[in-house]
Amino acid sequence: MYRLICRDGNAKRGEFHTVHGVIQTPVFMNVGTAAAIKGAVSTTDLQEIGTQVELSNTYHLHVRPGDEIVKKMGGLHKFMVWDKPILTDSGGFQVFSLAGLRKIKEEGVHFNSHIDGRKIFMGPEESMQIQSNLASTIAMAFDECPPHPATREYMQNSVDRTTRWLYRCKTELDRLNSLEDTINKNQMLFGINQGGTFADIRIEHAKRISELDLPGYAVGGLAVGESHEEMYAILEQVVPHLPLEKPTYLMGVGTPANILEAVDRGVDFFDCVYPSRNGRHGHVYTHTGKINLFNAKYELDDKPIEEGCQCPSCRNYSRGYIRHLLKAKEMLGMRLCVLHNLYFYNHLMEEIRQAIEEHRYAAFKEETLYGLKQGEKD
Amino acid sequence: MYRLICRDGNAKRGEFHTVHGVIQTPVFMNVGTAAAIKGAVSTTDLQEIGTQVELSNTYHLHVRPGDEIVKKMGGLHKFMVWDKPILTDSGGFQVFSLAGLRKIKEEGVHFNSHIDGRKIFMGPEESMQIQSNLASTIAMAFDECPPHPATREYMQNSVDRTTRWLYRCKTELDRLNSLEDTINKNQMLFGINQGGTFADIRIEHAKRISELDLPGYAVGGLAVGESHEEMYAILEQVVPHLPLEKPTYLMGVGTPANILEAVDRGVDFFDCVYPSRNGRHGHVYTHTGKINLFNAKYELDDKPIEEGCQCPSCRNYSRGYIRHLLKAKEMLGMRLCVLHNLYFYNHLMEEIRQAIEEHRYAAFKEETLYGLKQGEKD
Repeated sequence: MYRLICRDGNAKRGEFHTVHGVIQTPVFMNVGTAAAIKGAVSTTDLQEIGTQVELSNTYHLHVRPGDEIVKKMGGLHKFMVWDKPILTDSGGFQVFSLAGLRKIKEEGVHFNSHIDGRKIFMGPEESMQIQSNLASTIAMAFDECPPHPATREYMQNSVDRTTRWLYRCKTELDRLNSLEDTINKNQMLFGINQGGTFADIRIEHAKRISELDLPGYAVGGLAVGESHEEMYAILEQVVPHLPLEKPTYLMGVGTPANILEAVDRGVDFFDCVYPSRNGRHGHVYTHTGKINLFNAKYELDDKPIEEGCQCPSCRNYSRGYIRHLLKAKEMLGMRLCVLHNLYFYNHLMEEIRQAIEEHRYAAFKEETLYGLKQGEKD
Repeated sequence: MYRLICRDGNAKRGEFHTVHGVIQTPVFMNVGTAAAIKGAVSTTDLQEIGTQVELSNTYHLHVRPGDEIVKKMGGLHKFMVWDKPILTDSGGFQVFSLAGLRKIKEEGVHFNSHIDGRKIFMGPEESMQIQSNLASTIAMAFDECPPHPATREYMQNSVDRTTRWLYRCKTELDRLNSLEDTINKNQMLFGINQGGTFADIRIEHAKRISELDLPGYAVGGLAVGESHEEMYAILEQVVPHLPLEKPTYLMGVGTPANILEAVDRGVDFFDCVYPSRNGRHGHVYTHTGKINLFNAKYELDDKPIEEGCQCPSCRNYSRGYIRHLLKAKEMLGMRLCVLHNLYFYNHLMEEIRQAIEEHRYAAFKEETLYGLKQGEKD
């Protein structure tokens, strides 16, 4: 399903074919946690800002509105009116980061809902069942996200369990995909590599999960507190042990600089809440650095956020107006910033794909990184 | 500037020509208090939902970002990127309803900003200067909005002062319109009729202000606590004493039923925060009544808010999805409801205009009122 179009150094330019259309990689997935992108951005807007893949969170949708409800409404695609690919995470990360008191056992995790405190159990089978109800294009394996830092012993045990869970995920998703009333019988499973900053544990794990011949693999458990340099070093060591002819997804990462570096190390898929979260706080991206629109110097600035940007905000509104909206706590201010930031990320990926195709990725990366460092003054 | 196209009973179908284009009346103006429609609705959206006139609040823009800032940014039209007509209120209503401790004198009102408490003075001249800086299409006269109920003596004194203030407004706006650096030298002034529920005071006042031959007149100080029947009775008595060949604006009113009744009594212009405020609370309008999308019965409802509605929400999203967004406190839920409600109001005015043109307004009104009463079950 993945076709490697070309390589430029270790950077990959690929095409991933799904029942919901073709994804051009490298790609940045736009995060819509609760079946909506925060900042009043609709799926109609996503069409306009070049989004290829929408990402929703299994845990959030399980607790509200409930995956059974989404299934009755025809699955996530119909529910949120988006006919392109959707990736759902496994719920694992949220269980380990959001939920209250939890207990990890071989069969899965017992925890309390962060909404109403009710007891929930989620294991590999439950995660697959929920994701099957949501009917996303790509389901992620249920894994443990180990704390950082963790001891070597904790990490090894955790990774071993994650491997056993991956086998159970595959068995369960195969079963669900064969059921009559399953909405997306072609739902794909991506495995997740773990191991923290222990390179040897990660490599061994990468080899073991690669044997399953899944449609794609993710590198999880990074950007959890380690330095950027550690993250890049891990990618350099681990990505070569994941299948070249499958997409590689670096979960929850990151800044434009992180993405440029990770692409250079062979990563295809990205997702991160930064563009929407920063947008809601008036922090907007430009090729010459991130700027803070709350800054007084933008009060009378009639230029768009970034000159030449084709996003719906920059095509119409000025920094001065958006600053006023943010100061006046008008939701429109957040919306315009989020639209710009998501467009910026989506467009950056387009520039990245073109640079790889034209075999000038190294120069493009250096040049873009240099530009991005100019700002950060606000 | 106002052309009366036809009448059907007392209902008027007119055209109001301005430097920012022609307004078809009866019209509902969409309220964007702080140069933005609450609910993350942009001026780009307004183009899509049939908005003819945007209304902004002088008091709010004076305190933030400051009318001098808006002037430096080229006036409200350029600031918020809207080339159709804009009406600004005088600030009077907010001074009397929002501001802290205030003191009314012949020269104007001393009060404290509701943002930072700083002392502000606003009189007829100041209001005109601020509105001239904002450069709206239509400026409203600075008046006192008397409390309800008020004694006859208080009301008579207040109305007399409002008349004297109107003369000062006209003199000052004429002066401002003749200045070199004024952005909109064709800014128009609408006078405001006051008098509470004292019909004779209102009629006497209507006659006095009509003598000024202003481009339009408003009926103010209604919908402040009196019953709907009292409001309709006042309109029946006062509107005939305002010029037929000028637009009549009923300020801050109201529900679809109020509008249908007021049109029947000769009103041309309306504005109200109901559609956006109700939308933000999940209350949405349909021709068969207002519904509350928080209601559990919409959980699995895959129909649009109103079948056949051409608004951006109804063309794409279901009640079930929007309900989920509202429950999950996703800003998108509010946005979709506000877009629908504003479209509903704008479209209702279109239906009203057509019914008047076709001389079937009485039947249309009864039929529509009957439909609106069906719902209100939630």
